[in-house]
Amino acid sequence: MDEVMADSSTRLADMYQAEFGIDLHQQVWDNGCKVYDLALDGLRTYVRNYLHQPGFFASLKIFDDAARVVERLNDQHEVFICSAALEFPLSLVEKIQWLQKYLPFITHKQIIFCGGRKRFLDGDYIIDDHINNLEAFKGTGLLYHASHNIHETRFTRLHNWLDIEQYFFGQTALT
Amino acid sequence: MDEVMADSSTRLADMYQAEFGIDLHQQVWDNGCKVYDLALDGLRTYVRNYLHQPGFFASLKIFDDAARVVERLNDQHEVFICSAALEFPLSLVEKIQWLQKYLPFITHKQIIFCGGRKRFLDGDYIIDDHINNLEAFKGTGLLYHASHNIHETRFTRLHNWLDIEQYFFGQTALT
Repeated sequence: MDEVMADSSTRLADMYQAEFGIDLHQQVWDNGCKVYDLALDGLRTYVRNYLHQPGFFASLKIFDDAARVVERLNDQHEVFICSAALEFPLSLVEKIQWLQKYLPFITHKQIIFCGGRKRFLDGDYIIDDHINNLEAFKGTGLLYHASHNIHETRFTRLHNWLDIEQYFFGQTALT
Repeated sequence: MDEVMADSSTRLADMYQAEFGIDLHQQVWDNGCKVYDLALDGLRTYVRNYLHQPGFFASLKIFDDAARVVERLNDQHEVFICSAALEFPLSLVEKIQWLQKYLPFITHKQIIFCGGRKRFLDGDYIIDDHINNLEAFKGTGLLYHASHNIHETRFTRLHNWLDIEQYFFGQTALT
């Protein structure tokens, strides 16, 4: 979910800028890292904890084309949404509600919440922004483009959901 | 978790008996089914919804030897606890708290919550009470003895956590 379907990075940078007056939106890309990696000295944990504020996940925007392309995939494949959510239980209900709002065709039977590592997953494809989840996966790992993975070269990189549509269907929608 | 580590069946029978005065504790075994399968006409869904009452999961007892044997497994293997919990979000936090109470050595990185089917799991062994989860698993499926699976013969049946200990370690603890 985070940084693949839900734009948590922009929201973190928004919150950091609002609190500290420093704009990190572009700097995370220039530095190949996450927002909290660029926090002022001693504030990394404080900024990372933005992720765990009540309402944080509910406020996240869905990436362009994600809902339409997930629905198209869901029509033809067995799709699971697997999200690292166990670290802070508050996010669990918000993530369920977010999915119900943006991807109402996804049933609860297709949702998986885990604690971090996704190495327990079996499947044909995984789309993820974290290298370690792709490394551990026995099927095909597809790297969703994110600031913290820009230097990775071992996996097929998909920059956005139109790229994902192109990968799986060989054509993008007429727009 | 349910009916493998946590005794949800006894609790359901307790609640049914308290409300309707009918003792199903033994009848589920005699009939090879779940408590709500024996509910009075028209009450199956009502009784199944006991599962979703606030506090239900928190009230469940852990099976004898489960905590000790899971800890022993956890010392030597990579253990994940995978529980179908997404149907009713209320159970999510209760299940996390239950694990923290009874299996405090299990970290959040080892917890997986899903919506029902566990066919996305990769691993060497699964211990589960539901046949469909064993059927879909590519590794070794071990059937945890439960009233609703007594007629199944295709899988190694483990009757309790001493059986599980015997299976993996070849010996039970001195008691």
